Amino acid sequence: MRTVDLIQRKRDGEELAPEEIEHLVEGYTRGDIPDYQMSAFLMAVFFSGMSDREVSRLTECMLRSGETVNLSNVAGVKVDKHSTGGVGDKTSFIVAPLAAAAGVIVPMMSGRSLGHTGGTLDKLESIPGFRTNLTSEEVEKQLSQHGLCFIGQTEKLAPADRKLYALRDVTATVESIPLISSSIMSKKLAEGVDALVLDVKVGSGAFMKKQVDARRLAQTMVGIGRRMDKKVQALITDMNQPLGYAIGNALEIMEASQTLQNAGPADLTKLSIELAARMIHLGKKAATLEEARRTAEKHLVDGSAYRKLKQVVTAQGGNAQALDKFELLPNATGMREITSPRGGYVTSIDAEDIGTASNMIGAGRDKKEDPIDPAVGIILEVKTGEKVDAGSVLCRLYYTKEDHVEEAADMVEDAFRISAQKPDERELILEVVG
Amino acid sequence: MRTVDLIQRKRDGEELAPEEIEHLVEGYTRGDIPDYQMSAFLMAVFFSGMSDREVSRLTECMLRSGETVNLSNVAGVKVDKHSTGGVGDKTSFIVAPLAAAAGVIVPMMSGRSLGHTGGTLDKLESIPGFRTNLTSEEVEKQLSQHGLCFIGQTEKLAPADRKLYALRDVTATVESIPLISSSIMSKKLAEGVDALVLDVKVGSGAFMKKQVDARRLAQTMVGIGRRMDKKVQALITDMNQPLGYAIGNALEIMEASQTLQNAGPADLTKLSIELAARMIHLGKKAATLEEARRTAEKHLVDGSAYRKLKQVVTAQGGNAQALDKFELLPNATGMREITSPRGGYVTSIDAEDIGTASNMIGAGRDKKEDPIDPAVGIILEVKTGEKVDAGSVLCRLYYTKEDHVEEAADMVEDAFRISAQKPDERELILEVVG
Repeated sequence: MRTVDLIQRKRDGEELAPEEIEHLVEGYTRGDIPDYQMSAFLMAVFFSGMSDREVSRLTECMLRSGETVNLSNVAGVKVDKHSTGGVGDKTSFIVAPLAAAAGVIVPMMSGRSLGHTGGTLDKLESIPGFRTNLTSEEVEKQLSQHGLCFIGQTEKLAPADRKLYALRDVTATVESIPLISSSIMSKKLAEGVDALVLDVKVGSGAFMKKQVDARRLAQTMVGIGRRMDKKVQALITDMNQPLGYAIGNALEIMEASQTLQNAGPADLTKLSIELAARMIHLGKKAATLEEARRTAEKHLVDGSAYRKLKQVVTAQGGNAQALDKFELLPNATGMREITSPRGGYVTSIDAEDIGTASNMIGAGRDKKEDPIDPAVGIILEVKTGEKVDAGSVLCRLYYTKEDHVEEAADMVEDAFRISAQKPDERELILEVVG
Repeated sequence: MRTVDLIQRKRDGEELAPEEIEHLVEGYTRGDIPDYQMSAFLMAVFFSGMSDREVSRLTECMLRSGETVNLSNVAGVKVDKHSTGGVGDKTSFIVAPLAAAAGVIVPMMSGRSLGHTGGTLDKLESIPGFRTNLTSEEVEKQLSQHGLCFIGQTEKLAPADRKLYALRDVTATVESIPLISSSIMSKKLAEGVDALVLDVKVGSGAFMKKQVDARRLAQTMVGIGRRMDKKVQALITDMNQPLGYAIGNALEIMEASQTLQNAGPADLTKLSIELAARMIHLGKKAATLEEARRTAEKHLVDGSAYRKLKQVVTAQGGNAQALDKFELLPNATGMREITSPRGGYVTSIDAEDIGTASNMIGAGRDKKEDPIDPAVGIILEVKTGEKVDAGSVLCRLYYTKEDHVEEAADMVEDAFRISAQKPDERELILEVVG
């Protein structure tokens, strides 16, 4: 089997056989296939796509390239949630305790901020003392005791994906549905979960700008799950404006905490309930989806999910008091108000610009090695569809250093569209796949 | 300027600016841009193509990456001919002396066999003593004295092309019209010629299987010439069957010699006259193309081109007697006849199969390092359109080692299509571009 022939056949739109996909992934992981052949192959995949069979085999090969988490000692159905990444997306901190409070085992494995979106691990680490590098014994113990843990991906999980991702990042081959799907699914399935709920974001603040692409991504991931005997469901949700009001690490922890106390934004609460309900349903803790929704709502209203989060924060070394007393979280020292240039309706808030501006003042990172500032970020005062007066506050920037504040403020100002016409209401949950 | 952004923009179908193309070629040649980014870029070019402006800049950058031949001390208009490669294509040995006999200066720079096609240098080296590695002083002297030399490309000419070609070869990015065009033209323009005649082959024995692709290739190369102030004309010619009757190094030298003595095959003679006429016309040795054709014919009939070839062979250390006394050329020791399984008309002779079979018995090479056997090859007894009886000889294989003879014989047998219906006559010269 010559690698150049496989590249050529993929280039010419042919379907590769399972053992050919294996040859590529295993050869590349071992170092037998050089980067320059793999990058040409990845670009050929970008243009020619992959069949369901190919993408499933690719996922399986990446999954098998490293260790997998063995949760067989933990009783119960294990379900995780994964979001393709948005701005202000703090659903994990709400959804995971909601599902765990209902008895679902949630081994939540997350990543860090990259590009204009935030990272769950970074947000959690704004809680003083919180640590995400649990040993496998600690994971097992905590799941048995609390039904929930928040952990990072170890180097040993799907190393083929890690190596491929690093190559895609520098060869303009990130934005490919089969490559995104297999990357996500190989890591998620390496966690040893039985089922998975996906939140596929679409809109200006998401990687997928068009609903048709988001649908294809969702269908591809659900298809991979089906071929690998895992239950996978995907919601396609709107990411044209940030989710909730808070953007930034500690700020998002605060808003998640409020939401778990039933005092959160309507959109964030609604999406969290829906995602949690699907986890509860797939986790066999409710016979119907309707029942699962009621269960999730109950755990939100009665505070049991909030208590669950506090227990887990404590178990992972964090100061759970910080979830009540926000002054214990890192706090910004400077504030800048952005006001509306005129009266009218907010017709759009460009989520990507808001995310980029927030990262510009320190909330995120451009490169893996960059440090982040947990205290800083943006709090919106209004959302799309609301009426504003000339001069009224649209949002506030919270910062600790003056650098880039001007630039970020300009970007945020441009992110708001104000016009005389009230915009049509936009659905938050657009489609369900799987 | 980030290389990954340039890859992405090409991937998304955008046109790159001249300085961006420069960044890529110069960065890659210097070693600042790694192979894995360049191969992703090349695959993006394969799918997205290049504008005329891009391909001209690419050619110019590759041309400027190394030395160029300075022929300003040689008086006269310098014209070369280049063929995109076919089976049995020995026109160089006929065309070059025809043009030189008419007073055109012909610095003919050629390559070696690769894949199923032969190489001009390999064929020349079957003449005992002939050497192609002339110094630049020798080239200058010989051009001034005889108006013709046959030389190989030095390592110093267009090193960017050499490096890019090696990468394309292993990443399935060879078959791209802008990449093929810039590769050919950068080397040809580095030779210091004033004008160039291209023979773009199309058909089963050519790299271009379809006339529409051959036309695009021809147009692209003519366009590059125009933007760089060189006169370039291209003929698109049929390569569905081998050109002439002989395939193999010494065998082709013999047939070229016969053709220069006005005793060659009709198709080879016709194409050679046409190519030479265009060189004579572009070389300003005839006022009209019609006059140039008459000049070429005259030099064929009166033997002056044949004498020119002999002088040049002698000048380059070769035994010119071998062009009369073929027993002085390397001779095969074994012969195998392929006969027709039935009576009828020869409707096609697959040129690629004939070329591959000839190389299988030693006439060509798969890898650059492979040795070749100058004596071996195939001589056709019939060509497309001719009538044959059952059992009559279709062609003869000449070999020196038994290895692969069976396999090659089977392949050659399959290359002939014999049927009851007389096929339509096919044009040899299909189009003129430029």
